[in-house]
Amino acid sequence: MPFDRVAIIGLGLLGGSIGLAVREHLPDVTTVGYDADPDVRERARELGLAQTIADDPADAVRGADLVVLCVPVGAMRAAAEAIATGLSPDAIVSDVGSAKQRVGKALAETLPGHHVIPAHPVAGTEQSGPEAGFASLFHQRWCIITPPDGAEDAKLAALVEFWRALGSTVEVMDAEHHDMVLAVTSHIPHLIAYTIVGTASDLEEVTRSEVIKYSAGGFRDFTRIAASDPTMWRDVFLHNKDAVLEMMKRFEADLCAMREAIEADDGESMFDLFSRTRAIRRGILEQGQDDARPDFGRHDHD
Amino acid sequence: MPFDRVAIIGLGLLGGSIGLAVREHLPDVTTVGYDADPDVRERARELGLAQTIADDPADAVRGADLVVLCVPVGAMRAAAEAIATGLSPDAIVSDVGSAKQRVGKALAETLPGHHVIPAHPVAGTEQSGPEAGFASLFHQRWCIITPPDGAEDAKLAALVEFWRALGSTVEVMDAEHHDMVLAVTSHIPHLIAYTIVGTASDLEEVTRSEVIKYSAGGFRDFTRIAASDPTMWRDVFLHNKDAVLEMMKRFEADLCAMREAIEADDGESMFDLFSRTRAIRRGILEQGQDDARPDFGRHDHD
Repeated sequence: MPFDRVAIIGLGLLGGSIGLAVREHLPDVTTVGYDADPDVRERARELGLAQTIADDPADAVRGADLVVLCVPVGAMRAAAEAIATGLSPDAIVSDVGSAKQRVGKALAETLPGHHVIPAHPVAGTEQSGPEAGFASLFHQRWCIITPPDGAEDAKLAALVEFWRALGSTVEVMDAEHHDMVLAVTSHIPHLIAYTIVGTASDLEEVTRSEVIKYSAGGFRDFTRIAASDPTMWRDVFLHNKDAVLEMMKRFEADLCAMREAIEADDGESMFDLFSRTRAIRRGILEQGQDDARPDFGRHDHD
Repeated sequence: MPFDRVAIIGLGLLGGSIGLAVREHLPDVTTVGYDADPDVRERARELGLAQTIADDPADAVRGADLVVLCVPVGAMRAAAEAIATGLSPDAIVSDVGSAKQRVGKALAETLPGHHVIPAHPVAGTEQSGPEAGFASLFHQRWCIITPPDGAEDAKLAALVEFWRALGSTVEVMDAEHHDMVLAVTSHIPHLIAYTIVGTASDLEEVTRSEVIKYSAGGFRDFTRIAASDPTMWRDVFLHNKDAVLEMMKRFEADLCAMREAIEADDGESMFDLFSRTRAIRRGILEQGQDDARPDFGRHDHD
């Protein structure tokens, strides 16, 4: 392992999980954590999310050879500013944000001359906060690294090795492509889920109590995603605006086509689409990216 | 139990689960099954989905005091025609379809003078076919019964008792309200899921392989629903057209508002919505309508 000391800035679901995963998979690596919220720092100490929890961000990164910023993407610039004075010239500064172009730009501007290599582990749950982390969060999940032009090969290789050690499979791509891919596989799904849950709770004809009672017909799936951290997701939509708007446009056009099919009693094109979509599910199960048990295994607890 | 003999017409996920649930919860009740597909009948015999599997629909219902039609809503009228000659005058004819106004009308027209009382257990998985059934499918789930005007109280009470015996909580409402409620809690979620999975698989900028690889960012949740039976869902949209189109209109308006918020960098209204939607999730968990484990408990299998 090319790192002796890893600093984790932000101790929510992602930061906490990195701390716990390092403890499990890389027991020789020292971890230092920091969170801007004193209550979170206190909780992180109790939970042992990192070996040391510093009360100052610059202190937290002092001597670290890897710094991972685990804050909402809208808070990345401020986090980078806060650590700047403590940062070693040799350290890699990385992050876990879900929008890479703007974050990469913000970090490069704030920390000129430093080794900034953004990354995004495609993993999470709907939970947030220091209690939400767990060591296996990154197992069998992809981590996308988006090195800027001119990133040092040795630094990139070290970061790849780190994520592999935590159980991830690593892919390297450019930030622009990352932002387009994640708009489809993550941002638009969250946007749609938040929207439909909002639509359902604002109806007059159907009460909120009915929406809750009969949610097992499909709606409840969307509520899981729509329970995700509001700050994190607000920031994602604001910071990956162009790709999100582009993908929304495609989705809205397809939704319009679906509406026209229903209006025209066009069962055939519905059937065609509904048959095609099954293939994508099969691909996801074959590649181990979801639980193959029916209904996500919910009935195993009956 | 007011029934001695229950006939199940259609032996997919729902019909098969009813047969298995009756065997478990009502061992004294005789079950007879029928499916239009001879291969399904064969499989149903091997799996023991009902005590007897008849090769003719009219034979299947002969002597039954409850007949449950478990076919796609578009096939209800034909199923009712096929059983008509075997039906006892005293028998209740019910179903499990997800659209109640049109199904109720089709059954009443096809079986005049018979005791038609439509019902809808709000339960299912993304699987279909005779292998998909299991006895606990209806545990802790709601079953909505939509008796037509003039339905006999004793018959309604008997059907309520049947569904309670299978583990469901029963609610009685009129068919029109049912169709509006289910449009929100089930039909629109499926429609949206099918649509976004279609959008994602048709992109040129993002390959299908990338969509699959990075699906853990949220997209994979939608693929579960979008793997549901194409025939069943085509029929639902065609047979609950008015309510589905009405609810789509609301959703599209809310989506448009969301797009405008992103375009205007209006983080505040996003944050407000994203905070409100968490409350609905909490309500669903409090009422035992979903698995409270993070990420549906997927990580418990890591």
